[in-house]
Amino acid sequence: MTIVAVVGDGSCSAATACLAEETGRLLAEHGATVVCGGLGGVMEAACRGAKSAGGLTIGILPGRRRQDANRYVDIPIVTGMGEARNVIVVSSSESVIAISGGYGTLSEIAHALKQGIPVVGLGSWQLSKDGREDTRAIDHSSDPAEAVQKALALAIE
Amino acid sequence: MTIVAVVGDGSCSAATACLAEETGRLLAEHGATVVCGGLGGVMEAACRGAKSAGGLTIGILPGRRRQDANRYVDIPIVTGMGEARNVIVVSSSESVIAISGGYGTLSEIAHALKQGIPVVGLGSWQLSKDGREDTRAIDHSSDPAEAVQKALALAIE
Amino acid sequence: MTIVAVVGDGSCSAATACLAEETGRLLAEHGATVVCGGLGGVMEAACRGAKSAGGLTIGILPGRRRQDANRYVDIPIVTGMGEARNVIVVSSSESVIAISGGYGTLSEIAHALKQGIPVVGLGSWQLSKDGREDTRAIDHSSDPAEAVQKALALAIE
Amino acid sequence: MTIVAVVGDGSCSAATACLAEETGRLLAEHGATVVCGGLGGVMEAACRGAKSAGGLTIGILPGRRRQDANRYVDIPIVTGMGEARNVIVVSSSESVIAISGGYGTLSEIAHALKQGIPVVGLGSWQLSKDGREDTRAIDHSSDPAEAVQKALALAIE
Repeated sequence: MTIVAVVGDGSCSAATACLAEETGRLLAEHGATVVCGGLGGVMEAACRGAKSAGGLTIGILPGRRRQDANRYVDIPIVTGMGEARNVIVVSSSESVIAISGGYGTLSEIAHALKQGIPVVGLGSWQLSKDGREDTRAIDHSSDPAEAVQKALALAIE
Repeated sequence: MTIVAVVGDGSCSAATACLAEETGRLLAEHGATVVCGGLGGVMEAACRGAKSAGGLTIGILPGRRRQDANRYVDIPIVTGMGEARNVIVVSSSESVIAISGGYGTLSEIAHALKQGIPVVGLGSWQLSKDGREDTRAIDHSSDPAEAVQKALALAIE
Repeated sequence: MTIVAVVGDGSCSAATACLAEETGRLLAEHGATVVCGGLGGVMEAACRGAKSAGGLTIGILPGRRRQDANRYVDIPIVTGMGEARNVIVVSSSESVIAISGGYGTLSEIAHALKQGIPVVGLGSWQLSKDGREDTRAIDHSSDPAEAVQKALALAIE
Repeated sequence: MTIVAVVGDGSCSAATACLAEETGRLLAEHGATVVCGGLGGVMEAACRGAKSAGGLTIGILPGRRRQDANRYVDIPIVTGMGEARNVIVVSSSESVIAISGGYGTLSEIAHALKQGIPVVGLGSWQLSKDGREDTRAIDHSSDPAEAVQKALALAIE
């Protein structure tokens, strides 16, 4: 069973949610399990998509209440550790798809790259240092199908 | 879906493993999911029992490698947080069954009690303060069937 | 510099606070730094005692606001990790003095013992398993002077 | 007491170490305490600089051994939580100076920005999303004096 993290904002536009739902659906159709932060926005849309295709979803929650999980989370993991749960979301995955996203998402991208877990971006962050883009870091995709294909191909053991 | 934590030593006697396996099997037969620390000993035996009855198992790992999970873990959660993962094991459960166990298990019992999550003991710790036993803390059981019955009856929402 | 953890309830009786303050004062007089959970009750009293003797105090806070630290904390460490910060309190110490305390304190005792960090008790928990008291676990003391003497003598490198 | 985090690679060039040492020294001269990840490279150089000016240094360690702290750390905090300690480094600070750095440093920048803690960069990451640079995120400086001045001016309460 391949586990792919889908990371992004807890509240997002309808267009971003549409991308996240399609991403979740395609992951489930390919037999992958979705792990995410368990809340709303991109996380909820990805879980909804995965469930629409009969997939399994895991939500790593920052708070102390399992009731905070969106309704499409099958397995709520309750950490009570706030943002430190971002580390667990990516550490528990074999590859990461980042969809748009703010600084929390950026932290998940960074933790994944630090650990050598491949990151595929869909309208997400670009990173530069000393004026040069870090082109090896995030594998940018133009649509959910390409993102899912890359995430599955790159998934580490 | 009810999630019950089974906590105990990472290495244990054959007798303790037998209790843990029976506990895992009975939980799965009653439709409960087993969450544990994902390693050997009591954790592995409980997962093996749960899988023998077609149950679902979650392992919250202390290290950074999913490969450290015992082979009966369906959902490995990789924390890289060492003992702090003990908090997550119990926080993610609706009740806890402690089987024998050392100081790590004691920490899980304590974290559960602190959060108001019921703890059922099977040959596990007894707690006293100022010379008086804290009889409300751990609900002691004499066999796996009683422990599972209590854990399911006491499970919080 | 020896670092000793003082652990106990976030709210406590005047008598317990008196023991904690005396403990903090004696630790500082012996040149030890006090680390604690940074909040009220035993934690605040221990810090107040340490400051009265010119000592240094560290508070490992569970929440996200440094303002939650009691006013006698010199170094507030902001974890945002809830109870998981209990692991850090004891891991950062060379020995632990547990003064009375509830289940949170019990978790700190357990994490310390798991890691081989000596624990001295002052009216705190007694542990038994299978009907036998675990006499090696907690070194019980009858007053702050004895507790501090033991904590300093037992402090690991 | 103002606490400023200095974040950067655990091994670095002599030029980067020189910037970090100067940064630590200037922070101490302005009465600020340095908090960092406690290891080598930028962390060690910043602590060495701070100590050369009589400052106080805090090292939030990822592992379980206080002996892993560089020799210029006054207060070693032992987390045993791996990369999740990055969250604590920035949460415990009132502003952050990022000096060069890799993905671990990027995670610290992201966690700080997520929490509204100001980040000053010295030859560090630039962030863009959808092809537009996020110019509000990191306040880039050209030398340690400017970085320290900004970090102190921007420090949150």
